[in-house]
Amino acid sequence: MSNVARVAVLVSGRGSNLQALLDAAADPWFPADIVRVVANVPGVFALERAAQAGVPTSTVVSKGRAREDFEAEVLAQLGEVDIVCLAGFMRVLTGAFLDRFPSRVMNIHPALLPAFPGAHGIRDARAYGTTVAGATCHLVDNGVDTGPILAQGGVPVLDDDTDESLAARVLAIEHRLYPMCLRWMAEGRVTVEGRRAKVKLLPGETRWLGG
Amino acid sequence: MSNVARVAVLVSGRGSNLQALLDAAADPWFPADIVRVVANVPGVFALERAAQAGVPTSTVVSKGRAREDFEAEVLAQLGEVDIVCLAGFMRVLTGAFLDRFPSRVMNIHPALLPAFPGAHGIRDARAYGTTVAGATCHLVDNGVDTGPILAQGGVPVLDDDTDESLAARVLAIEHRLYPMCLRWMAEGRVTVEGRRAKVKLLPGETRWLGG
Repeated sequence: MSNVARVAVLVSGRGSNLQALLDAAADPWFPADIVRVVANVPGVFALERAAQAGVPTSTVVSKGRAREDFEAEVLAQLGEVDIVCLAGFMRVLTGAFLDRFPSRVMNIHPALLPAFPGAHGIRDARAYGTTVAGATCHLVDNGVDTGPILAQGGVPVLDDDTDESLAARVLAIEHRLYPMCLRWMAEGRVTVEGRRAKVKLLPGETRWLGG
Repeated sequence: MSNVARVAVLVSGRGSNLQALLDAAADPWFPADIVRVVANVPGVFALERAAQAGVPTSTVVSKGRAREDFEAEVLAQLGEVDIVCLAGFMRVLTGAFLDRFPSRVMNIHPALLPAFPGAHGIRDARAYGTTVAGATCHLVDNGVDTGPILAQGGVPVLDDDTDESLAARVLAIEHRLYPMCLRWMAEGRVTVEGRRAKVKLLPGETRWLGG
């Protein structure tokens, strides 16, 4: 199993995307192991999901604390990992942290980036009046939701949607995208050129999940 | 045929979207007639397409001319029309012009707005590195590509795409979207609330063409 990538997941909340990654990693053919889950908020449900899956967890509280201190402790908790996945992790990481994992920190965002970055992708899309919403799995850079895109998926926005109904539809796409992209990363099929990510796709694979 | 909407199309170039509208309107059940095509550039191929379809044309040169003068002459050429469609029309219209056709000026844009507005939607999407591109049919307001969205359609971006290959794929979506949205407009099924357009959809219809 020496070719299996070691993956840490950073969480801040209920961890539905963490669950998607845990479920994928539970399959023996999946090329990544989730070896650590770190929460920056105590007691969040994501920690329980990790424990249920037998994955070691850490809580490193970020609130009221200098970023450098916080990140140093997170790094200490992570130990040796190949890939870091953000899953609803609501803190912006510094360049110093990111430099420890060059082009190996992943995130998922509930909008078709570059449209609707930031903390309210679903609400902003509905307020704008787009007829498509979606999700973007991307590498993390120094900006907010600006890093190289790995894959995207779309879902229709319906006239009678609420933020909740649309978020649920988008979440289903997120749960397909994130394990798919983690697999590509773990298999070393992703290269970054400038601000674009390239992926060696197998027949039938696609970086755009329409719908 | 008194319920058929009278439509004018403004063009600046080869007019491939004009052709899609002409083809749709050629069917007797289509609820709109193209009654006038106006070009702001002399001799463009769109004028030939209109002539082939038996649609009267006008050329009103915009270059080197005050916007008010130009728009006054366009208005005079349009006569009585219900809907104005911009099809590759490369001039921004003033509020005074738009007020003559409230919420009845349509445009098509080669990007999934609000991402990549402006004159280079395809090139900008490739430079950013999105894995989806697409087109947006929308009502025109005072901004550039900011008006209420009627429908959108998406296509994958492939790693070996050129601007030309991607533009061709997007254009195929544009040619599906524009007649679809013109039909909705002509049948009076579109209402605007704030910055959002609502559409009374029939069973099976969708405002998002995935792909």
